[in-house]
Amino acid sequence: MSLGEFSLIQKFFSQHEAGAKHYVPALGIGDDGAVLDVPSGYQLVQTIDTLISGQHFPEDTAAADIGYKSLAVNVSDLLAMAADPAWFVLSLSLPNNDATWLQDFSTGLFQAADDYSIRLVGGDTCKGSLSITIQASGLVPDNRFVTRHGAEVGDRIFVTGQLGSAALALAALEGRLALSSSQLKNCLPALNRPRPVLALIPILRQFASAAIDISDGLSSDLGHILEQSQVGAQLIKQQLPVLPWIQEHDRYDLALHGGDDYQLLFTVDSTKVEAMKQMAEDADIIINEIGEITAYDFELIDGHQSSNLQTRGFDHFG
Amino acid sequence: MSLGEFSLIQKFFSQHEAGAKHYVPALGIGDDGAVLDVPSGYQLVQTIDTLISGQHFPEDTAAADIGYKSLAVNVSDLLAMAADPAWFVLSLSLPNNDATWLQDFSTGLFQAADDYSIRLVGGDTCKGSLSITIQASGLVPDNRFVTRHGAEVGDRIFVTGQLGSAALALAALEGRLALSSSQLKNCLPALNRPRPVLALIPILRQFASAAIDISDGLSSDLGHILEQSQVGAQLIKQQLPVLPWIQEHDRYDLALHGGDDYQLLFTVDSTKVEAMKQMAEDADIIINEIGEITAYDFELIDGHQSSNLQTRGFDHFG
Repeated sequence: MSLGEFSLIQKFFSQHEAGAKHYVPALGIGDDGAVLDVPSGYQLVQTIDTLISGQHFPEDTAAADIGYKSLAVNVSDLLAMAADPAWFVLSLSLPNNDATWLQDFSTGLFQAADDYSIRLVGGDTCKGSLSITIQASGLVPDNRFVTRHGAEVGDRIFVTGQLGSAALALAALEGRLALSSSQLKNCLPALNRPRPVLALIPILRQFASAAIDISDGLSSDLGHILEQSQVGAQLIKQQLPVLPWIQEHDRYDLALHGGDDYQLLFTVDSTKVEAMKQMAEDADIIINEIGEITAYDFELIDGHQSSNLQTRGFDHFG
Repeated sequence: MSLGEFSLIQKFFSQHEAGAKHYVPALGIGDDGAVLDVPSGYQLVQTIDTLISGQHFPEDTAAADIGYKSLAVNVSDLLAMAADPAWFVLSLSLPNNDATWLQDFSTGLFQAADDYSIRLVGGDTCKGSLSITIQASGLVPDNRFVTRHGAEVGDRIFVTGQLGSAALALAALEGRLALSSSQLKNCLPALNRPRPVLALIPILRQFASAAIDISDGLSSDLGHILEQSQVGAQLIKQQLPVLPWIQEHDRYDLALHGGDDYQLLFTVDSTKVEAMKQMAEDADIIINEIGEITAYDFELIDGHQSSNLQTRGFDHFG
């Protein structure tokens, strides 16, 4: 993996042993490749995500936040598959070899590695515009992974956390709307420090018929489940968990179509909902029921009104 | 892995089943992550490499060559670990959604996937300057991988193919030296279409004490083996396999310090050399002995003269 290249910034990355308690590679950083053991009875889940400066985060985002977010969005994908995070590899493209930036970036990266017990096992660096690619690997007991194609008519739809907060923060940073500093403080962590709720993993494995992480927007990502499961959905506007600001200003478009939430959406057979809710409550996980899987159409119910939801989300070549 | 994004260019990537004969994923392209089975008795080897336009290939490189090379350099890393290629994930950053470019890129990519029996299982695309990150996974029987740290004094040093050809082609393309069109034709494939010799894998597992692929230059990459094995080396200039042009113009600097060769270098205990050579010959693999592992120093022997080799290679922040 061109770890010769990696030696350039090895001091920022090689000493950390985050996730070691969960997973120790047979061979880690410092060779052409890392060597890993996958325990018998488990399947490997792999994700890859690239974050580009100015595209996936504002250019003036703090290096530590970039490091944290780069890893957290990949862990979010592992969670959506109900896989326990195990290890990751990093490819970092940097305009220059800025020691302060690297120190801050690696601090944020390893804070996420500690939070999610996932271990860096290799990487590659090169000179170029700022871009971070992380490929994360997770483990799931055989055939216990959760896909996008298992939702069935009558299943209830749940999400973690709040929706639209990241899009609200981004809109404020870009001057598209005005927030007080305390309001900004409420939503900025959603944009810079997404926090996948790993405690949900056993619940997903036991109860979820389908799951996805909301990266491009609720309508767009739930849209993927509907498409792959060949079903429809009704969402109840008043049940969408949002910050008071969004409710007061009726800016539910941020919750429906805003990207970067990295909350988890999952569906559960209606007969299992009570047991699932009990397990979530026992684990102190906050989830909200936001609607139901239907046979056709993708609708938003607002009191007595219903409107068609288009899956607008984030267009990567818009 | 934000495969929502991937659907944008799914038609270029999802239908291909290269490597299927070797490896079929439990869940491939189209979800938050791919799900893979690692057979019992095998370890997983993971590499990651990013290629940036203008940095790792000239900006006017044909899209098919970029696709081929992006995968081949990762397979080269797997080979250096003595791992059989199994599957890969792709992250593609593109300035625009150019269907012709994507068609050509995917044609080259899948030609390499066919050549090396490795299967695409997932990916991510985004808008940005042209950059390709591939994370490749390979399989190796338990503890049969080959590292950089096993070379011992007296071991002989071998390389596949020719050295310096890629650097020669690049120098000609950049106008730093003049080649006839037939001379350029001799070296250009080395730059654009590196060809890792997978038939070497059983030989490496049986005989190699250390191995590395030459991506940054012979002196630099052998330097990694020397550093990690805590040994020295003597290379014999006249034994370096080079094109006639390099020999005639005494431009061995291209062979010693030029990057992008993607040939394999490995070391073998002197008592096993004959058996190894026989196995290579039986498999029609061309290898050349270029020197020997010593206790100290890194020297180039040229007739009766000896000079210290500095590991110059390619400086990624030069």
